[in-house]
Amino acid sequence: MPAILEPFHAISISTIAHRLKAEGREVIHMEFGQPSTGAPAAAIAAAHRVLDVDPMGYWQSDALKARIARHYAETCGATVAPEQVILTNGASPALVMALSLLFDPGARVAIARPGYVAYRNNLHALFMEPVELPCGPDERYQITAAALEALDPAPDGVILASPANPTGTVIEADELGRILAVCKARGIRVVSDEIYHGITYGEPALSVAALDPEALIVNSFSKYFSMAGWRLGWLIVPPALITQAMARMGNLFLTPPSLAQHAGLVAFDCRDELEGHVATYARNRDLLLAALPELGLKRIAPPDGAFYIWADIGHLTDDSLAFCEKLLRDTGVCTAPGIDFDPVEGRRFFRMSFAVSTPLIEEAIARMKPWFAAFKKD
Amino acid sequence: MPAILEPFHAISISTIAHRLKAEGREVIHMEFGQPSTGAPAAAIAAAHRVLDVDPMGYWQSDALKARIARHYAETCGATVAPEQVILTNGASPALVMALSLLFDPGARVAIARPGYVAYRNNLHALFMEPVELPCGPDERYQITAAALEALDPAPDGVILASPANPTGTVIEADELGRILAVCKARGIRVVSDEIYHGITYGEPALSVAALDPEALIVNSFSKYFSMAGWRLGWLIVPPALITQAMARMGNLFLTPPSLAQHAGLVAFDCRDELEGHVATYARNRDLLLAALPELGLKRIAPPDGAFYIWADIGHLTDDSLAFCEKLLRDTGVCTAPGIDFDPVEGRRFFRMSFAVSTPLIEEAIARMKPWFAAFKKD
Repeated sequence: MPAILEPFHAISISTIAHRLKAEGREVIHMEFGQPSTGAPAAAIAAAHRVLDVDPMGYWQSDALKARIARHYAETCGATVAPEQVILTNGASPALVMALSLLFDPGARVAIARPGYVAYRNNLHALFMEPVELPCGPDERYQITAAALEALDPAPDGVILASPANPTGTVIEADELGRILAVCKARGIRVVSDEIYHGITYGEPALSVAALDPEALIVNSFSKYFSMAGWRLGWLIVPPALITQAMARMGNLFLTPPSLAQHAGLVAFDCRDELEGHVATYARNRDLLLAALPELGLKRIAPPDGAFYIWADIGHLTDDSLAFCEKLLRDTGVCTAPGIDFDPVEGRRFFRMSFAVSTPLIEEAIARMKPWFAAFKKD
Repeated sequence: MPAILEPFHAISISTIAHRLKAEGREVIHMEFGQPSTGAPAAAIAAAHRVLDVDPMGYWQSDALKARIARHYAETCGATVAPEQVILTNGASPALVMALSLLFDPGARVAIARPGYVAYRNNLHALFMEPVELPCGPDERYQITAAALEALDPAPDGVILASPANPTGTVIEADELGRILAVCKARGIRVVSDEIYHGITYGEPALSVAALDPEALIVNSFSKYFSMAGWRLGWLIVPPALITQAMARMGNLFLTPPSLAQHAGLVAFDCRDELEGHVATYARNRDLLLAALPELGLKRIAPPDGAFYIWADIGHLTDDSLAFCEKLLRDTGVCTAPGIDFDPVEGRRFFRMSFAVSTPLIEEAIARMKPWFAAFKKD
């Protein structure tokens, strides 16, 4: 039997939202993890120029590979050669490549629960076995060195995500060091999903590239660079895996979009505009954190980074899908049910993305306050 | 052990070509299968408009799905519902999805040899087993019903490609009917790669969508629509597979590039410009066919479609990689060695792509004539 993947339930909620919108309702989209802003202005200007002069065949930008390599040298002191940078069609294909490069069918790969749904599903699609590590408030909703140490037998690999989706939680530097030490000692291969790097509200998240030259690093232009629909990401591989990584890229995906590569190169020099987005997220986060107690949401994951609130709604429901649908129909605020991220506990969690404008966050809070106050558990 | 994929040798030849170009040589690129033209003018204009107004988040265009479904109704009378159209990041990801949807590890999937290198490599990457059917002049370099009938045990699936890469050969209508009948009788699942549809020099190639509603159909905007670097393709799946296909798309790839979807919709209405490209390919093909005897290339696959000449050079070499490199260094004409497409016989074949301008084809012929005349086998 080919692998059976679970559907993404936020899509069904979002479909209802779009129907309500078509009926004239004012919907606030907080269900998906994507900036509501577009690409930086200079990146868009570059795209206009390229559109007029470049026939855009299959292409991989050496300049962009070099720029990404320089980014690591500048931001975390990691030495990454341009050839180690594999340009991909987004972080999802980069993750598929990473798993395919490191593991064979039946391999056991540890992931946090809650976690990004594609970790579990892509492992299944590649006939590998996700080993879910339950992560609650005691673990700051993150994988710990102790949890990896306790797994018997040791898993073949682990996917780290810091800041994480759906929680926003960052693994603290000391703990990250301990995790990598356990992985080294036990022969656990590390894939680090760093797609939310650049979006943190305290210390910047540390790239695993600076700590473990054997780790595979996944990143993309979809979050910090605000270019989700451009479909451009990258994978850092150790030198020994470059040839097989390029072979996978050429066969499974061929090349990333040419225009996105041109625009992405320019986006690296648009720090002011991009930091403005992060400042907006920070304001939105403050507003939500101030409002959550009034909504009766007192147990949330520490939102150290990314742009999510992962909140325990167990006092209100044990059916997060129905809860999100009711919230949407009653208030127009569209959120994601926890079951997408946690197949066990997710029925009593939901996720709000605050990567929208501050006025929309204010409006969402204003609508949610009376609704939560009036909410009665069945 | 993770799967080991073979490198694409045309890339190493192309790398030498770019080095020669940097040294001031005039290189004619006939090594890759991509149009030298850009997207249709109206599609580019649409992209300019979208760039200025759409923040381009994750998106799948319902309008494009409907337009593609209508394309099948109009061109071959096949009934395809828009929901059966899965928009992908090119034909390569569409192929990965098709294989992942139909087969499990160890599945045996028949492919033509010679054939597109990604068929073999992606089967390996998904831990499936390519069953190579040797196809020579007697089979018009294509899979036949007899060859599929003779396989014992029956394979789990087959990948059809008509017109094919590297040969350009089309499976004739009667034979295609017989092939599908064998597949139905023996329970062989069909994946039809139709990426070269629209580019034929006799009868149009018939979509398998019109003949077998259970077949999976791969296509893309990279060839006929001249939008290779835009990375947009599609997969047609039978209704029973829609849910799992969408789950794979959302997890493995997320969404195709937004801008390409906007531009692709417009490209469907740019027939005059696109048929102009096909007319150029037809002229180039005529020029090459007239010149081949003078080059001493008398055994070629019937170039019914696509934009390739697949020529037997066994009288000149048994090392097609070295042959292509020498041809490039001596004349600046860059071609692809047969070993990329046929691991057994490919050492005595090479592939020329004629998807370039007619003056360049004339120039390539002028350079190759004295070179072939003077060529001495080692």
